[in-house]
Amino acid sequence: MIAGKGGGKEKYDYTTMVAQNLQHKIFSTGQRSGLKQFYTDVRSRSVWLCEPLETEDYVVQPSEDVSPPKWHLGHTSWFFETFLVQAFHPHFKVHHAGYGFIFNSYYESIGERSPRNARGTLSRPTVKDVYAYRAAIDEQMLAILETVSEPQWPEFERLTVLGLNHEEQHQELLVMDIKSIFAQNPLRPVYRASQNDTAHHTDAPRGRTDTAFASGLYTIGHATEDGFAFDNESPPHQVFLEGFTLENRLVTNRDYLAFIEDGGYTKPALWLSDGWATVQREGWHAPLYWEKLPEKSGGLWHETTLSGFHEISSLLDVPVCHVSHYEADAFATWSGKRLPSEAEWEVAAMISGAQVTDGNFLERAAFHPKPAHHDAPATLQLFGDVWEWTASAYLPYPRYRRESGALGEYNGKFMSGQMVLRGGSCATPAKHIRRTYRNFFQPDKRWAFSGIRLAGDF
Amino acid sequence: MIAGKGGGKEKYDYTTMVAQNLQHKIFSTGQRSGLKQFYTDVRSRSVWLCEPLETEDYVVQPSEDVSPPKWHLGHTSWFFETFLVQAFHPHFKVHHAGYGFIFNSYYESIGERSPRNARGTLSRPTVKDVYAYRAAIDEQMLAILETVSEPQWPEFERLTVLGLNHEEQHQELLVMDIKSIFAQNPLRPVYRASQNDTAHHTDAPRGRTDTAFASGLYTIGHATEDGFAFDNESPPHQVFLEGFTLENRLVTNRDYLAFIEDGGYTKPALWLSDGWATVQREGWHAPLYWEKLPEKSGGLWHETTLSGFHEISSLLDVPVCHVSHYEADAFATWSGKRLPSEAEWEVAAMISGAQVTDGNFLERAAFHPKPAHHDAPATLQLFGDVWEWTASAYLPYPRYRRESGALGEYNGKFMSGQMVLRGGSCATPAKHIRRTYRNFFQPDKRWAFSGIRLAGDF
Amino acid sequence: MIAGKGGGKEKYDYTTMVAQNLQHKIFSTGQRSGLKQFYTDVRSRSVWLCEPLETEDYVVQPSEDVSPPKWHLGHTSWFFETFLVQAFHPHFKVHHAGYGFIFNSYYESIGERSPRNARGTLSRPTVKDVYAYRAAIDEQMLAILETVSEPQWPEFERLTVLGLNHEEQHQELLVMDIKSIFAQNPLRPVYRASQNDTAHHTDAPRGRTDTAFASGLYTIGHATEDGFAFDNESPPHQVFLEGFTLENRLVTNRDYLAFIEDGGYTKPALWLSDGWATVQREGWHAPLYWEKLPEKSGGLWHETTLSGFHEISSLLDVPVCHVSHYEADAFATWSGKRLPSEAEWEVAAMISGAQVTDGNFLERAAFHPKPAHHDAPATLQLFGDVWEWTASAYLPYPRYRRESGALGEYNGKFMSGQMVLRGGSCATPAKHIRRTYRNFFQPDKRWAFSGIRLAGDF
Amino acid sequence: MIAGKGGGKEKYDYTTMVAQNLQHKIFSTGQRSGLKQFYTDVRSRSVWLCEPLETEDYVVQPSEDVSPPKWHLGHTSWFFETFLVQAFHPHFKVHHAGYGFIFNSYYESIGERSPRNARGTLSRPTVKDVYAYRAAIDEQMLAILETVSEPQWPEFERLTVLGLNHEEQHQELLVMDIKSIFAQNPLRPVYRASQNDTAHHTDAPRGRTDTAFASGLYTIGHATEDGFAFDNESPPHQVFLEGFTLENRLVTNRDYLAFIEDGGYTKPALWLSDGWATVQREGWHAPLYWEKLPEKSGGLWHETTLSGFHEISSLLDVPVCHVSHYEADAFATWSGKRLPSEAEWEVAAMISGAQVTDGNFLERAAFHPKPAHHDAPATLQLFGDVWEWTASAYLPYPRYRRESGALGEYNGKFMSGQMVLRGGSCATPAKHIRRTYRNFFQPDKRWAFSGIRLAGDF
Repeated sequence: MIAGKGGGKEKYDYTTMVAQNLQHKIFSTGQRSGLKQFYTDVRSRSVWLCEPLETEDYVVQPSEDVSPPKWHLGHTSWFFETFLVQAFHPHFKVHHAGYGFIFNSYYESIGERSPRNARGTLSRPTVKDVYAYRAAIDEQMLAILETVSEPQWPEFERLTVLGLNHEEQHQELLVMDIKSIFAQNPLRPVYRASQNDTAHHTDAPRGRTDTAFASGLYTIGHATEDGFAFDNESPPHQVFLEGFTLENRLVTNRDYLAFIEDGGYTKPALWLSDGWATVQREGWHAPLYWEKLPEKSGGLWHETTLSGFHEISSLLDVPVCHVSHYEADAFATWSGKRLPSEAEWEVAAMISGAQVTDGNFLERAAFHPKPAHHDAPATLQLFGDVWEWTASAYLPYPRYRRESGALGEYNGKFMSGQMVLRGGSCATPAKHIRRTYRNFFQPDKRWAFSGIRLAGDF
Repeated sequence: MIAGKGGGKEKYDYTTMVAQNLQHKIFSTGQRSGLKQFYTDVRSRSVWLCEPLETEDYVVQPSEDVSPPKWHLGHTSWFFETFLVQAFHPHFKVHHAGYGFIFNSYYESIGERSPRNARGTLSRPTVKDVYAYRAAIDEQMLAILETVSEPQWPEFERLTVLGLNHEEQHQELLVMDIKSIFAQNPLRPVYRASQNDTAHHTDAPRGRTDTAFASGLYTIGHATEDGFAFDNESPPHQVFLEGFTLENRLVTNRDYLAFIEDGGYTKPALWLSDGWATVQREGWHAPLYWEKLPEKSGGLWHETTLSGFHEISSLLDVPVCHVSHYEADAFATWSGKRLPSEAEWEVAAMISGAQVTDGNFLERAAFHPKPAHHDAPATLQLFGDVWEWTASAYLPYPRYRRESGALGEYNGKFMSGQMVLRGGSCATPAKHIRRTYRNFFQPDKRWAFSGIRLAGDF
Repeated sequence: MIAGKGGGKEKYDYTTMVAQNLQHKIFSTGQRSGLKQFYTDVRSRSVWLCEPLETEDYVVQPSEDVSPPKWHLGHTSWFFETFLVQAFHPHFKVHHAGYGFIFNSYYESIGERSPRNARGTLSRPTVKDVYAYRAAIDEQMLAILETVSEPQWPEFERLTVLGLNHEEQHQELLVMDIKSIFAQNPLRPVYRASQNDTAHHTDAPRGRTDTAFASGLYTIGHATEDGFAFDNESPPHQVFLEGFTLENRLVTNRDYLAFIEDGGYTKPALWLSDGWATVQREGWHAPLYWEKLPEKSGGLWHETTLSGFHEISSLLDVPVCHVSHYEADAFATWSGKRLPSEAEWEVAAMISGAQVTDGNFLERAAFHPKPAHHDAPATLQLFGDVWEWTASAYLPYPRYRRESGALGEYNGKFMSGQMVLRGGSCATPAKHIRRTYRNFFQPDKRWAFSGIRLAGDF
Repeated sequence: MIAGKGGGKEKYDYTTMVAQNLQHKIFSTGQRSGLKQFYTDVRSRSVWLCEPLETEDYVVQPSEDVSPPKWHLGHTSWFFETFLVQAFHPHFKVHHAGYGFIFNSYYESIGERSPRNARGTLSRPTVKDVYAYRAAIDEQMLAILETVSEPQWPEFERLTVLGLNHEEQHQELLVMDIKSIFAQNPLRPVYRASQNDTAHHTDAPRGRTDTAFASGLYTIGHATEDGFAFDNESPPHQVFLEGFTLENRLVTNRDYLAFIEDGGYTKPALWLSDGWATVQREGWHAPLYWEKLPEKSGGLWHETTLSGFHEISSLLDVPVCHVSHYEADAFATWSGKRLPSEAEWEVAAMISGAQVTDGNFLERAAFHPKPAHHDAPATLQLFGDVWEWTASAYLPYPRYRRESGALGEYNGKFMSGQMVLRGGSCATPAKHIRRTYRNFFQPDKRWAFSGIRLAGDF
């Protein structure tokens, strides 16, 4: 039985979970107990993320990008119901005939869907209904997990692991969307007042230096024998890279403020053409969630985080966050540098020996990036904190093959008009990420925890 | 103490209230007990209307016209706080500094407001917060009511009566908006399964006949000495009318279905030019909330009401509802008739001696129009059931004067681009209506309980 | 034979034409020579209006409201071809099979049409083709005029007079649209440098006084026996008016500048709600065609007229022009006055004995309003100069009947969402106007020569 | 002196020009006569392309993508005036102070511009004015060419060659835009009735076969010493390619019709997500300029070309044209193949020894692609006919550097949101193209002469 709303607190021990993450390949070798643990952990974490929410917070949708939290909770259960329970349960009966229409995200093969931009107009099913749906699906999933036959097990395990990775993606979206819901509310609600608040970090900041990587023919991408990965990370393939450099830390609020104060948002020569058009159309003059108070209120820049509304002056060494690809590119141009390609990023992560476990991920419950440690520059701050915009368009790798059937819609059909981001963020579950992991957004999107890494030529 | 959420059921006795309505002028002669009763009745009724709602239903906004129920509950309290408590309470302290921004509807004089189309994106304040706000304002209002000085009493009473009439208008909006929220939900929630359901009405339908009214110089409009009315109903003034006829009942679903089946929605010659453009743009082919099931599901017309989803065939004698002015006008043209002017309507109501108390109003809790009684044709079905679109634009009467100050924004500034409707509907509180009452909507709006009365020349 | 492009100048004598206008009822008594003269005069005037145009000026469409001049020239010929030549020519053959689709404006009964907002994308038919079309239609019309049988004559004459009045309406549109085309061009082309330029008017301005009109029952509207009028002016009918006053002249640029300088465009309390929304959305801060030069260029208000770009300071006594109904209403509110109803306007015109021939109409070739004469206040400046926004919505008169068939679409279907204007403008042919004439536009439109007359209560 | 409008016909000899194209590097070695010849040839060709136009055809803009032909003629002259005459003429005087605002396309560094989507609303400057502008600039350019000092010559030559390549790009746009202007006109005007009309091609069609290319490390991109190229083609750099195959000819109308008839436009599984959304939103069901006549007119597919309106059945072996990247990708998916990357395309062109001169380019005056010759399969039909959509996003090559100053806006700022096309089309001047040439459009654009080449894995 998975912890329901309100009851999840006791069962969720992050220290243990992060440790378990390191062994997460274990349960993909056929052990039912391992998969059960993985399933229980992931499903509990979604509930834990929603604990600070009032019922009303589950319902609203401030923009088309954002989904109501209850939709995420329902959709992830629908995924298991549609692709697992329906296929493997001997006496499958749909939980509710109307839920498919409501909780299908974008699977054209499955059938018609409620329009994406109308998710916030649906008061029913209620939050309680959605939690009941989760409980029912969990019960069925755990029953199948115990009873599915050995011949069926590999496919059941493969799809369950996919469904759990899918839910982890929605956990990141939950954090992003809750932030959007709270940040646009004039009453400025707080999500979780972080104990280890970045605003009170007192270490000396890490200076900026370049690390160089030699030119050569490298192999990037995920090999099937290395465990689970999304299809878009495969197959491994060779790329030729010119020599390049990478900065040893992310761009900070302090760095970015200098760009703003130098008129970065008023100089078209710094911007891609589409970026400049977006700046003009949207009236951008700072990252998302930044707000300059009027002169009568002090005139200072502030930033809304999930722990509240803070002066930027208290966050200067924190990585800048919630910038679009356009802003990342303009900042790089202004800096006389450029963004890395995704291949450069992956090669740097491989050569530098960066470890995922070093990163500031969701399990740390900071819900915001943290300053780079002064004393560990070797790590390059590649994993966690913020997703790093690359200069690479999101396109299929050579010889990429989509999964067949409805699940073939998972990744491949989005390989158009988006840019790759790498490394995960403070809203990504630690075990979800890999060196080969490819995240992607349209270049104007800013509601992800996305930031800037600078690269150069060598 | 006003009944809070969940506790209102016992205290709300409709039989008594309708009787009281007939004496509602009593409390406008200076009796504090009468005003207190009026205040308590009205404020309780808003709560009663929301009783069937889940928390989630209070939050959503399916279109810009519709407001979330919790917004209505907050806004009506804000109205009392802003125009009464602030002015009359000796130790006024604003309930919450952020609520003015959120609950101001359109009073430019009061200050900036949250954008109307973003009301459904605000999860905070919560429903519980809003009920606490109501309770706090009620407490303050009732305290003032007991203690305000005699010299201040008349102005306090005048504004309180205005505030209560304002809340009654929002009660009708609550019913309209709840219907919109439920009707667009694919799970088809039911608001209240009416005991005296119109779907089971078995009387013989009333036939259509014309009543004639002679030409002449008539006086219409509201005289101040007749008790409360909105400023837009004054002053009384003379109008010359040519002889005219009025049909003895509202247009029914049966009548309207004939228009649909004759291709009414496909013949531009029947429509005003703006109406035809709207039909094309919106893809209208029936009233709002009508839905023709696909052939495989029987192919029949259905209508969503607040008591559920019904076959039109069970509602044929019920007045057609949720039509726009454009549809009303096109139907009239197709019928070889026309819509009445608002002066014709008011004169007919006066001459025919129609009584408000005859009507199917909110207190009957039918939440839907009812068929005209076969045996009482004299009443003309003028009051209640559905608002009747007139052929008159909503414009100021001769020598109309707006109230000064912020309350001058109440009516006058909307006298542009809208059409007048008369008579009240099944969502209107009975005591709220008068023969002189002028409702108004843009000609393309359909979410009010609006229907059709045909007129002719004589 | 009608004068073609370039050959019209000699044949168009305005002194004679204005004199003829006074006898324009003569040719509606059956005389073929009278109708021929009328036909020739009107058709020549359209050509004369286009004389200053380059071929390119005939083609463009700066906004959906505006039509390319060549479209007007083609459409007016199409009207004669469709409603006259086709009906009365014994051997009718359509001039070009594709022209119906292109030159039909809004007659749904006639068939499909090129979308209104795409008129400026059609380079073909060329200007030369359109003039050839006009010549061909003229030839056929004049041939029918000579040969149509006596029994057919009355209907032929009636429809021809309608077609000529229709073309006169498009002559006003031509002036409006040419002004729009020129005024938005950054090269500031001049249409006709007026000899008697309003900018150099030196008379003392007329002061503002009120003329009072008694309350009573009046008859307004057009009686059939008084000659041609559009159907929307009929039938004559009684209206009861309270006593009212009318100012003795139009509101001038000087008056309006005081409104602007008093912050008129920044005070929502002065505006109708729709008007204020329009001001915000469109960024209005002055009438259409006004432009305040940047400080470095002197910072003065200027106005583009058809004779060029002038400082407002040279046009202070000229009636303000190109204001919307919203602006007219806001100005009236700011002035503590109101706009007249259309009935008040018509009664005042009747009682004051104002003569159409006094007015500054199209034939004077000023193409701009002129200051009121100091020495003739009795005339009230009711006719010509600018159309006067009234407080009346454009609705059918009691017992109004549309023409049957396609021509029934001429007026009736537009009786929704528009406001009435009265009196004609400097772009209206003098003989086109009447005391009963009803012009109409949506309240946000400004490209007509529309201005402000103030009224009050008496 | 360059040939003006109407006088260009005699001076434009295509046989000679194509021959000269092969030696077009000669004039980039410092010979003034060579550059003069190049200048004269290019500038004459723009005039020649406009010869079939009526004045009205120069003015209109059917969509934001399309510019009026007179704008192209003016803009290309403005380019020479701004970047050459102004810099090199000893007594520079701007031709017209207002033209910079009108004819600047997108150079933010130069100053404000008329909005792109308003180009079709500008009747002035007239066509005659624009030709006078061209003549004045030509006179100045040729004077400078004779007199500029030796030290200044290299930079003058470099920028002139850039200006001429710029004008050649606008020549392709002229053909595309004229086609758009003509094709959307209901009168179906013909541009040039081609003598060697593709509709009458009778050769047997070329069959479809694959050519294989080995995996390996290749160098692509343009080296400076190879003569003129745009900055986006540099620098040369290594790429690793897996083995791949390329089909030996372009996809034809016959091939594409099979896709349509198999329901290609109704199956979301074949489409990228953005592509499917575009299909739905735009109502696509065939390439741009295809039209299926109604059943009563025969029900056959037709295609509008610059030589008229033809049945598809007469064009079955002609390469399909005017498809978007989305359609190209969907067709490839349906075919079980994929689009080539731009590196694969360039390597195939290099290895196969394809010659630019083989191609069907603008000088052949066919203005439409032609079927592949049966007897020369080795050429692969890589150059000319239609631009070939690749699977590559338009991004900077490694170590790409923009030009400094305003000309740095030429290419770099568009490296976002677009896909690369290769090979040139029947609307591209032959000497303009290279193996390394990178064209680019947003993936939903269809008004270029863009088609499909299929690739596969090997």
